Amino acid sequence: MNPRLRQYLPFLDWLRDYDRDTLASDLVAAAIVTIMLIPQSLAYALLAGVPAEMGLYATMLPLVFYALLGTSRTLSVGPVAVISLMTATAVGDVVATTGADYITATIALAMLSGLLLILMGVLRFGFLANFLSHPVVAGFITASGIIIALGQFRHLLGIDSHGDNLLELLPSLLASIGDTNGITVMLGGLALAILLLARYRLKPTLRRWGLPDRFADLLCKASPVFAVAITTLLAWSLALQSSGVAVVGEVPRGLPGLSLPALLPGLWLELLDSALLIAVIGYVESVSVGKTLAAKRRQRIDPDQELIGLGAANVASSLSGGIPVTGGFSRSVVNFDAGAVTPAASIFAALGMALAAILLTPLLYYLPKATLAAVIIVAVIALIDLSQLGKAWRYSRSDFIAIVTTIGVTLLQGVEMGVLCGVIASLVLHVYETSHPHMAIVGEVPGTEHFRNIERHDVLVHDSIISLRVDESLYFANAAYIEDSIYGLIADNPSVRHVVLMCPAVNAIDLSALEVLEAVNERLQESGVKLHLSEVKGPVMDGLQKTEFLERLSGEVFLSQHQAIESLGADQPCHMHVCKGTPAAGS
Amino acid sequence: MNPRLRQYLPFLDWLRDYDRDTLASDLVAAAIVTIMLIPQSLAYALLAGVPAEMGLYATMLPLVFYALLGTSRTLSVGPVAVISLMTATAVGDVVATTGADYITATIALAMLSGLLLILMGVLRFGFLANFLSHPVVAGFITASGIIIALGQFRHLLGIDSHGDNLLELLPSLLASIGDTNGITVMLGGLALAILLLARYRLKPTLRRWGLPDRFADLLCKASPVFAVAITTLLAWSLALQSSGVAVVGEVPRGLPGLSLPALLPGLWLELLDSALLIAVIGYVESVSVGKTLAAKRRQRIDPDQELIGLGAANVASSLSGGIPVTGGFSRSVVNFDAGAVTPAASIFAALGMALAAILLTPLLYYLPKATLAAVIIVAVIALIDLSQLGKAWRYSRSDFIAIVTTIGVTLLQGVEMGVLCGVIASLVLHVYETSHPHMAIVGEVPGTEHFRNIERHDVLVHDSIISLRVDESLYFANAAYIEDSIYGLIADNPSVRHVVLMCPAVNAIDLSALEVLEAVNERLQESGVKLHLSEVKGPVMDGLQKTEFLERLSGEVFLSQHQAIESLGADQPCHMHVCKGTPAAGS
Repeated sequence: MNPRLRQYLPFLDWLRDYDRDTLASDLVAAAIVTIMLIPQSLAYALLAGVPAEMGLYATMLPLVFYALLGTSRTLSVGPVAVISLMTATAVGDVVATTGADYITATIALAMLSGLLLILMGVLRFGFLANFLSHPVVAGFITASGIIIALGQFRHLLGIDSHGDNLLELLPSLLASIGDTNGITVMLGGLALAILLLARYRLKPTLRRWGLPDRFADLLCKASPVFAVAITTLLAWSLALQSSGVAVVGEVPRGLPGLSLPALLPGLWLELLDSALLIAVIGYVESVSVGKTLAAKRRQRIDPDQELIGLGAANVASSLSGGIPVTGGFSRSVVNFDAGAVTPAASIFAALGMALAAILLTPLLYYLPKATLAAVIIVAVIALIDLSQLGKAWRYSRSDFIAIVTTIGVTLLQGVEMGVLCGVIASLVLHVYETSHPHMAIVGEVPGTEHFRNIERHDVLVHDSIISLRVDESLYFANAAYIEDSIYGLIADNPSVRHVVLMCPAVNAIDLSALEVLEAVNERLQESGVKLHLSEVKGPVMDGLQKTEFLERLSGEVFLSQHQAIESLGADQPCHMHVCKGTPAAGS
Repeated sequence: MNPRLRQYLPFLDWLRDYDRDTLASDLVAAAIVTIMLIPQSLAYALLAGVPAEMGLYATMLPLVFYALLGTSRTLSVGPVAVISLMTATAVGDVVATTGADYITATIALAMLSGLLLILMGVLRFGFLANFLSHPVVAGFITASGIIIALGQFRHLLGIDSHGDNLLELLPSLLASIGDTNGITVMLGGLALAILLLARYRLKPTLRRWGLPDRFADLLCKASPVFAVAITTLLAWSLALQSSGVAVVGEVPRGLPGLSLPALLPGLWLELLDSALLIAVIGYVESVSVGKTLAAKRRQRIDPDQELIGLGAANVASSLSGGIPVTGGFSRSVVNFDAGAVTPAASIFAALGMALAAILLTPLLYYLPKATLAAVIIVAVIALIDLSQLGKAWRYSRSDFIAIVTTIGVTLLQGVEMGVLCGVIASLVLHVYETSHPHMAIVGEVPGTEHFRNIERHDVLVHDSIISLRVDESLYFANAAYIEDSIYGLIADNPSVRHVVLMCPAVNAIDLSALEVLEAVNERLQESGVKLHLSEVKGPVMDGLQKTEFLERLSGEVFLSQHQAIESLGADQPCHMHVCKGTPAAGS
């Protein structure tokens, strides 16, 4: 088969070998995922601030399109908490500034994110995701989880409060806490109790009762459905709506119609930033899940094709009136653990959701919003992971600053500013870290051809030669530091006639660094000092050979530092440099 | 002496050894620099859009303050073309949006830049300058030069046109080109001719006439003064003002008064971005000149103290009603070449300027603005260096893109957007470059302990072991790529049981990369493959030892790749991998 075709239509791969066993496995997984999806899709629509059916619509066509175009065999695409929060923030802002219709804007956002993802896939721009470091993603998800959970308190308490960040949410919550509706709190509390018990207590109990492990697991995963069923039944039978309990209300029955989103250039332009952010964040989350699951079965995913698969899923969601989607962590793991073998499982789950939309929607009228809020809160509690802070603190200050910045700004200024500041912080810190690279003046370990840091080892050094090893690629951020260091060494050591730059750890030299080397070479020559290089890597040498630097170099390029010293140090006075510092660790 | 005191008050260093010889040298240099400064300071005030005297005021106190607090012995601080252009742009924008007074805003900008520089110096934030790569600085200066030169055409033609970028300047120039004043063009042409002849022809001619080299050089440097004198004389004697020739007009006689700039928080806030940009750009330019000159005499400058010196100079300029200043390239080189030994030369130059302000200002009334425009144009022509484009193209595509972005955006959108986009472009390109690092599967060169790329050398490899050498530090931008590569290798080679990551070029592992390594370790373990490391650098190992990674690692950490293969490959089948690729270059 044409490999290009297989690359762009990955389903050709798994469809070929599809058999009855695979079908059985996929059907079981699909049933379990469908049961999870029903309450979650409703809840995330609530979180995004749109009518419940828009959550349902986001679980049909998107799953089918990702199944056909995505490369992960077991990723489960659909509405997820963080993307729904980002949708609510973005759409809320745009509606406030442009007066656009909320639903129209949400559908446009899904379309825009989808188109951006496809564009990134076609242009092979997946590397954009690399800008999101782990501390930024981890901090962002944790902070989003906190904002989401706090934001849902209003449904749990039956009050009216709003806000995209703590500075808005907390005062708003406190201001209206007096309006708390007791019945709503009780219903929400019941749902929360069912969900928390199911999550933390049910499985061991069921197993003690002798249920098979897998069945116990399935029951636990289905717990949101029980919570929905029980609280809906209560709300209906006790007519709690009349006591002020907010319910989902009329959900249109049946499948979504297909229609192009309204083409409003002004609105689309306003949404562009947010759409890009949602696209990138959704992609990063989805790909990391996909990668993890694929590795477990020695399968592989294609990051660029993933962009196309996720993009198509979002476009499909938009066309069918749904909200932005991505690959979700918890549902994908359930899908994987339930035995899904191919993306057909997702197609079956989509069919399950279509059936649910046809058959179950009338039953959703009395579903309390407090129950959905409880579903959301229990789902996002798992996202909040403050242990990352401690880990980052112990491992590296830079990563700690990045994570604290991301969490802090996200909590105080909202998701978009949080990601942006996190990315800027990690870039700035990376540049800062590499802008003063580790450098060592080295000398020869007597009787060997090895060169070591004179501050860690007793080594032989020549008075007229400075050998400087730079443990970093040379690029614009550290070029000035290296220049300063060399000039400093020359100013402090008037007897020096040769500087040897030892480059075994220099993986690249960019134009800024090259110009610094040219300047250093010229300045040193003017003050009677020759510049030499040693142990330059092949690709770096290839680059230098394209320039005039090597011709102008006052000194030579030596294959090894040993050769450099043999050639330059012959008949030169030398002495043992006895290291006074800390015991030798490292080189 | 207290070393801390000497660090903050560097003049204590040179003042101690000051003698009569030094005084003589410094006085000669000061005289020459003063002659250059008179027309330049007036011209750069014109460029900044403020009255001529504000240029003069920027050449007195600032020079004295930098002389006392700066660390370069020969840097000549004062108004420079690029900073004056940035000032005009920034102040023009703020005046347009806030309706502030132009002069007030200019003085506030100098104060703000100065305070920011001092703050950066105190906080040791000089590394911010590292964000400006050479392509960005070179591209920025070239594009600024083009904008400045084009902007001065209006004075040369005696017409009215405005704009901070080509998109504004060109239409504005074309629209009013019909109003060209013939006499102004002739005067400006005369000034231009004098300056260009002096720059490119005069010196060889004078030397042919037998003048000593140094004297010829001095005469050439003084050519702007001749141009000023001749055209002023013409304008006065022929009463050209009545023919529509614009002249400088009344310049207040005497020294500037000292006063605090108006404290207008709104205005200051509006100016903050621009002040930061002016501070950083001015610093980068100044430090690179200072560094170059210091290295020629084996002196050193302290980049953090430079921030304080330049900051003090700007604060002083603001207090005395001047424009933002920095260390200029051409004047500093003249100062150096004229034999300045200590910063006292700058103090004498400041005294010279003070004398000029007292004695010469009445003479400046008839100085044509066209002459000053000619001075500016000839000065900035030297800044325009398009050869950088070719050099970058040949050396590296990334650097080329960065320089083209900077030049293009600066020309089309102005200086601030130009620098910003240039910095973002170089960061993005750096991340892009390092996000898919060079990696090689290596094998043992038979009969040695050396390991080489199997694509470049014929080497021995084991079927159950993959040895992967990564030629880059592991950090967030490339963590995903490395993860993908390892999973890909495992998926493609089902017989593999060991992956050895060879790390001699890994200078750092950040938290993102650590988490990827943890995930890879876990995933590989689940599919029956062990992960090992070899040749890990000391500082990297120190970092890893602070985490649980080494305990969880399924495999081992080997000191050398040879040890790894000896230990893992014993009794394992192996074969010669014959390289079919290009001839071995590099490793």
